Amino acid sequence: MFIDQPKSAFEASLAFWAAATGRTPEPPSEPDSPYRSLGLFSGQTLIELQEVGEDTPPRVHLDVDTDDVEAEVARLEALGAKRVRSYDDGRYCQMVDPGGLVFCVIPPHTPDFDEQATTWP
Amino acid sequence: MFIDQPKSAFEASLAFWAAATGRTPEPPSEPDSPYRSLGLFSGQTLIELQEVGEDTPPRVHLDVDTDDVEAEVARLEALGAKRVRSYDDGRYCQMVDPGGLVFCVIPPHTPDFDEQATTWP
Repeated sequence: MFIDQPKSAFEASLAFWAAATGRTPEPPSEPDSPYRSLGLFSGQTLIELQEVGEDTPPRVHLDVDTDDVEAEVARLEALGAKRVRSYDDGRYCQMVDPGGLVFCVIPPHTPDFDEQATTWP
Repeated sequence: MFIDQPKSAFEASLAFWAAATGRTPEPPSEPDSPYRSLGLFSGQTLIELQEVGEDTPPRVHLDVDTDDVEAEVARLEALGAKRVRSYDDGRYCQMVDPGGLVFCVIPPHTPDFDEQATTWP
């Protein structure tokens, strides 16, 4: 799960959620990374902050983890979601649910993926 | 965590997320309840849908579970969050983070609360 914040609010929101949850944000993986992680909650739920453009309102977005992004995007399209855009040569896909809620389909990202994943026929 | 959807999109979004996650929504607790639960994910994260007003855009909101709502709201205000409104005689409080992201402070709601809760000095 990501908390998306435009640049103007990113540091204040990161500091707030770190203090609110009692965590120290993990160091950025690269100097210009738009991501900062607060780590795992209850041993399973990953909370990360992402810096987004000023035209994106503050939001939480869910990620659907999958070992086959293209197949999962096709499955979710058949269920009524719409594809918005792909990133990184199709490695990630941003979609919206039937109500317009933004979410992403991404490669496995959570430590319990193998154990918890649902296998679709 | 709640997926909030206005009435016009609520049933379609509920059907989508149920199919997307392979869950059957739990029956509503009362006939007019605005809430439907998809249950626990990875044994810990509760995903529920809430029907909200047409003026609220589709969104995900996080809940901060606490055994003392008023004290937790005061702690989070001191960290930079703002109180928006209270519900049910102060039993629930809607707040925004420093970037304007909506979240709620609520009584314990997750099965691992006792085990996972942070005690603040």
